[in-house]
Amino acid sequence: MSSLKSFASDNYAGVLPEVMDALQKANRAHARSYGADDITSRTTRLFKKVFGADVDVYFVFNGTGANVLSISSATQSYNAVLCADISHIYNDESSAPETFTGCRFFPLKTNSNGKLDLPVIQERLIRKGDIHYPQTKLLSLTQSTEYGTVYTKEEISELSQLAKTHGMYLHIDGSRFFNAAASLNCNLKEISTDTGIDILSLGGTKCGMMYGEAVVVFNKTLAEHIAYKQKQVIQLASKNRFIAAQFEAMLTDELWRKAAIHANKMAQLLYVTISKYLEITITKPVQANAVFAQIPREWAASLAEKFPFYIWKDTTNEARLMCAFDTTEEDIKSFDAILSALSTKKTPH
Amino acid sequence: MSSLKSFASDNYAGVLPEVMDALQKANRAHARSYGADDITSRTTRLFKKVFGADVDVYFVFNGTGANVLSISSATQSYNAVLCADISHIYNDESSAPETFTGCRFFPLKTNSNGKLDLPVIQERLIRKGDIHYPQTKLLSLTQSTEYGTVYTKEEISELSQLAKTHGMYLHIDGSRFFNAAASLNCNLKEISTDTGIDILSLGGTKCGMMYGEAVVVFNKTLAEHIAYKQKQVIQLASKNRFIAAQFEAMLTDELWRKAAIHANKMAQLLYVTISKYLEITITKPVQANAVFAQIPREWAASLAEKFPFYIWKDTTNEARLMCAFDTTEEDIKSFDAILSALSTKKTPH
Amino acid sequence: MSSLKSFASDNYAGVLPEVMDALQKANRAHARSYGADDITSRTTRLFKKVFGADVDVYFVFNGTGANVLSISSATQSYNAVLCADISHIYNDESSAPETFTGCRFFPLKTNSNGKLDLPVIQERLIRKGDIHYPQTKLLSLTQSTEYGTVYTKEEISELSQLAKTHGMYLHIDGSRFFNAAASLNCNLKEISTDTGIDILSLGGTKCGMMYGEAVVVFNKTLAEHIAYKQKQVIQLASKNRFIAAQFEAMLTDELWRKAAIHANKMAQLLYVTISKYLEITITKPVQANAVFAQIPREWAASLAEKFPFYIWKDTTNEARLMCAFDTTEEDIKSFDAILSALSTKKTPH
Amino acid sequence: MSSLKSFASDNYAGVLPEVMDALQKANRAHARSYGADDITSRTTRLFKKVFGADVDVYFVFNGTGANVLSISSATQSYNAVLCADISHIYNDESSAPETFTGCRFFPLKTNSNGKLDLPVIQERLIRKGDIHYPQTKLLSLTQSTEYGTVYTKEEISELSQLAKTHGMYLHIDGSRFFNAAASLNCNLKEISTDTGIDILSLGGTKCGMMYGEAVVVFNKTLAEHIAYKQKQVIQLASKNRFIAAQFEAMLTDELWRKAAIHANKMAQLLYVTISKYLEITITKPVQANAVFAQIPREWAASLAEKFPFYIWKDTTNEARLMCAFDTTEEDIKSFDAILSALSTKKTPH
Repeated sequence: MSSLKSFASDNYAGVLPEVMDALQKANRAHARSYGADDITSRTTRLFKKVFGADVDVYFVFNGTGANVLSISSATQSYNAVLCADISHIYNDESSAPETFTGCRFFPLKTNSNGKLDLPVIQERLIRKGDIHYPQTKLLSLTQSTEYGTVYTKEEISELSQLAKTHGMYLHIDGSRFFNAAASLNCNLKEISTDTGIDILSLGGTKCGMMYGEAVVVFNKTLAEHIAYKQKQVIQLASKNRFIAAQFEAMLTDELWRKAAIHANKMAQLLYVTISKYLEITITKPVQANAVFAQIPREWAASLAEKFPFYIWKDTTNEARLMCAFDTTEEDIKSFDAILSALSTKKTPH
Repeated sequence: MSSLKSFASDNYAGVLPEVMDALQKANRAHARSYGADDITSRTTRLFKKVFGADVDVYFVFNGTGANVLSISSATQSYNAVLCADISHIYNDESSAPETFTGCRFFPLKTNSNGKLDLPVIQERLIRKGDIHYPQTKLLSLTQSTEYGTVYTKEEISELSQLAKTHGMYLHIDGSRFFNAAASLNCNLKEISTDTGIDILSLGGTKCGMMYGEAVVVFNKTLAEHIAYKQKQVIQLASKNRFIAAQFEAMLTDELWRKAAIHANKMAQLLYVTISKYLEITITKPVQANAVFAQIPREWAASLAEKFPFYIWKDTTNEARLMCAFDTTEEDIKSFDAILSALSTKKTPH
Repeated sequence: MSSLKSFASDNYAGVLPEVMDALQKANRAHARSYGADDITSRTTRLFKKVFGADVDVYFVFNGTGANVLSISSATQSYNAVLCADISHIYNDESSAPETFTGCRFFPLKTNSNGKLDLPVIQERLIRKGDIHYPQTKLLSLTQSTEYGTVYTKEEISELSQLAKTHGMYLHIDGSRFFNAAASLNCNLKEISTDTGIDILSLGGTKCGMMYGEAVVVFNKTLAEHIAYKQKQVIQLASKNRFIAAQFEAMLTDELWRKAAIHANKMAQLLYVTISKYLEITITKPVQANAVFAQIPREWAASLAEKFPFYIWKDTTNEARLMCAFDTTEEDIKSFDAILSALSTKKTPH
Repeated sequence: MSSLKSFASDNYAGVLPEVMDALQKANRAHARSYGADDITSRTTRLFKKVFGADVDVYFVFNGTGANVLSISSATQSYNAVLCADISHIYNDESSAPETFTGCRFFPLKTNSNGKLDLPVIQERLIRKGDIHYPQTKLLSLTQSTEYGTVYTKEEISELSQLAKTHGMYLHIDGSRFFNAAASLNCNLKEISTDTGIDILSLGGTKCGMMYGEAVVVFNKTLAEHIAYKQKQVIQLASKNRFIAAQFEAMLTDELWRKAAIHANKMAQLLYVTISKYLEITITKPVQANAVFAQIPREWAASLAEKFPFYIWKDTTNEARLMCAFDTTEEDIKSFDAILSALSTKKTPH
């Protein structure tokens, strides 16, 4: 499998060279454990520079850890969480969210672009103060969404306002937050701090880190117990400096943006490339690093052999093609070549 | 703090060069996520070679994760776990064990060497079948112990026999299992598989890995649900290959033994070095990589400035001095120099 | 409020005289606690006579307790439960189900009669063996349903077959199971044991008991740990005999049937009575002791003053009118009189 | 077993006639469910009259429910609870406390009278603010204690002061609180509100109720979420009025005091009666309704046949003899007669 190239997941990609360098450099002498070290201090200051002086940041192992920690810092066990029915926390984190927080998770239907519109949220804002009903306390968005689309600043602000009005906190699952910011051509603060969100799971792994995510806390109320909960939810690394060092590399000179822009650009190229095949239908707007497309069922085997990817929806044979920081034009050309051999109907150029 | 050298924790040490190399080499091309990659397969085979063909192995993020996963694979939520009152799971993992497993944790008094003797265990084997009482199902040992002592093969076998007789599973928290095996001059199998234990948290981080521990399952019953629980307990890395690669490096040509022998040897040297000061009393047998000693209270500040360490017991000013794979003879000499300046009573040599 | 009569809930009704007598009689001399008494033994034997010799029975405090105990006896914490989106466990038991079991609860859309059809269940039977996805292990039905409709024997058998085929257990939330059996004119065994269900929450309170429900276990696998879990989930009464005594009264000479038939009959009378008002639309088939009807919004205040009831759906002003064992023809006549004063359009008789 | 008389548990006794009457009277007409009824309102006012206008009261099903609700209202899941090693929550409630609250429970050694002294508590007040260690937040006492002894007002005040000083809440498990107040010849307020405790599990069942306990909240902070948690922890009765009615009977004209004084008096008589046998050693001061005594092992069978009781400690053959509101002088005479036949050494009178 050494030559495997894949559109299956940005998790299949390895580690950015700058991140590997940072890990090497962090491996010097002794350092205090559990985040009491210099690199963690430095990286925390960097986060405050990027997101605003008032944020708190906690480094965790993975995305589920970031989400569960975020949610548990915002909820009591009799609360409910509103999330997209296609969200990662509802579909791909086992029952970790329930087991740790005790909360009910109410799935909301997304619009055709995978985003949550106001009305579907408002419909669930019922029975407030009714002790028999899990009390809704948190709204969780995914940025970029599972469909590779991106909430605009205005959309987030509007949802943030809705949440505040109804006594809810707003969480963003940002396992691909860097791709969203690159797509919107904005900085990280504009779509987090400035939109009034309360807490963010900031993903590092899918953008080229080896492991590690960050929980960024904007609302001081949510920071009250979070250090205790981080330990309790098994998300505190003893050699914490090696996660911090990776984030330091990512934030320095906006390395994340270079990686994310590249992945997004490759998704655009892939989109253009496969669009010319009449047998293929693009099903979602391509805004970040994912391309969703219906691909003929009979092509699946040939394609998956060289370029593994996931079938998102069996019934319609809708495929998800993910690009990563290390996807190359050559990869897409090779994919194109296979498609070309399979296709009998290509648009004239 | 760049020149910090410390006896505070083996967690303060960095990463073995061979492990850093393995991480570099693992960073090639794409690889399947969540453990479906070649490196994980290879490393799993290596574990079977080392521990026996029947074991299963799961790679997790950290020690608390390994312990919680092990315990949850062996228990129902109405069960109780017996552990040493000085154990890490009872003192240093917040309430993660209870929160995830629901179990009661009964602390048992250890003997003066930090080990569990049979009688204190037998005393707690009461009220079997009584629904009002949490039903004891797991005995957890620490190897090497929190006091830096080591259970012998015979001792483990005896405890394993006791556990079986009473329908309990035997878990070993082996965050310093490598140091124990080095101390006993045996291989890993002799003090795990061959002694009849059921499940092992095998520590990598404290012996020179960047992050990552392994749960080794000897009893097939405990393996039934463990893959599901690993995900649920937030201990499944997407880029799992980078944990596996570190363990591959550790097990290859017994790199772990070189690192552990060195740390243990440094502990012996430290022990001999500080023993000559009449103001200092060694309080525990030095068998692995820890030295426990009563050090005059008035020396603490001067020492901690250059060589941080933990005071284990305030009342007696008992200090814990940990050696790591990167502790040097020079470190100990420097420490000796400070002591020498403080001491007025040295044994004649 | 001493003269309050209500269609709000069968919980508003008091206790059947025969049940009060049984409580009085149970109050003799001393008796062993926690179910080791004669009345509990006798009542358990009675359950075996009614449901079959192989069942086990556990007496609990309330309906949420019965449901949570049933579900926890059938699941691991990484499992998922399928239930109707209108079900009590999904809407009226806070997050008790998640907090205690750790499971994900997937809400399924019911048909217009409040029942679960096979296709909506089958759609959720996905990703079996995928560790990232909560593994579906239990299907929970409500009998009679929240809409006062009743699953037939054939329907339950079919769902039971589906569950078995897919490695799921079948649970029935039978808080109004007696009303269902009365409606189907069958005995309790025919719609439980004989249909292959695994576990039943058998409600007593809504049919005229003071407190207490029973968990009836048909599948021996689910009985393995249930006694321990009953205690753990806080559902074991010290003076258990007083719950058992009530059930003994209910099962003796099928007292439950008399009470349930009466409540169901009153629902039919209420249905016929209010149907004659053209402003009112009956929205669900009346099969047990509930009548669902759209009632003009402007009538609500006048009606609720004398006869409290719940508005089930605000948007359509759909009301739920519950009858109980103590609802009388006079109550319905009084209700009719108020309606008559409010209505301007009555069907000619 | 109809003629069984027992010193096994006050749970073996039945229901006080006044309580049975109250249940009968509560069975009138319809009443709102879940505590929105007149009897609950009236009884709540009665509690405020007895304990002070500022208290809140919640009616629950049983003692474990009262304790778990109390603890969960005062803790976060990363907290620890200090309790006596002989306490009911540590020995007789399965792992319900951990499962519902997530907390660690630290057992403290009691003095020879079964009470907690200040020093053993102070020893555990360590590592405050250390995220690795479960953070102690609640101290739980039992009144009267498991040994049938009683904390004085002064002792409670002192412990309450200690708790406040260290940022802890003070909970009393008062399953036999009525017996304690009777023993101290004080009213309920003097040993609760006036001593500065935060929350109380007030037991009804063991003093002659059929079922039901009350959680009395003195500290408004703990009342913030408690109504939601009561539902979540499965402790909210639909026909709540039948628990309230029993407490109304108990508090009216201090019925509880009559019942408790009688039980305590019978314990004194039993104590005096058995003290005259030289083979028997009284092991604890008799202050409430329990007598602890070492009874010759060879007498056990003969005694237990007619008068079941629990052997508290096997090794010393220490028996616990409980008296209840319905224990009679005749019962004790009969017991005496059996002892007399067994004994060869009686003190001269």
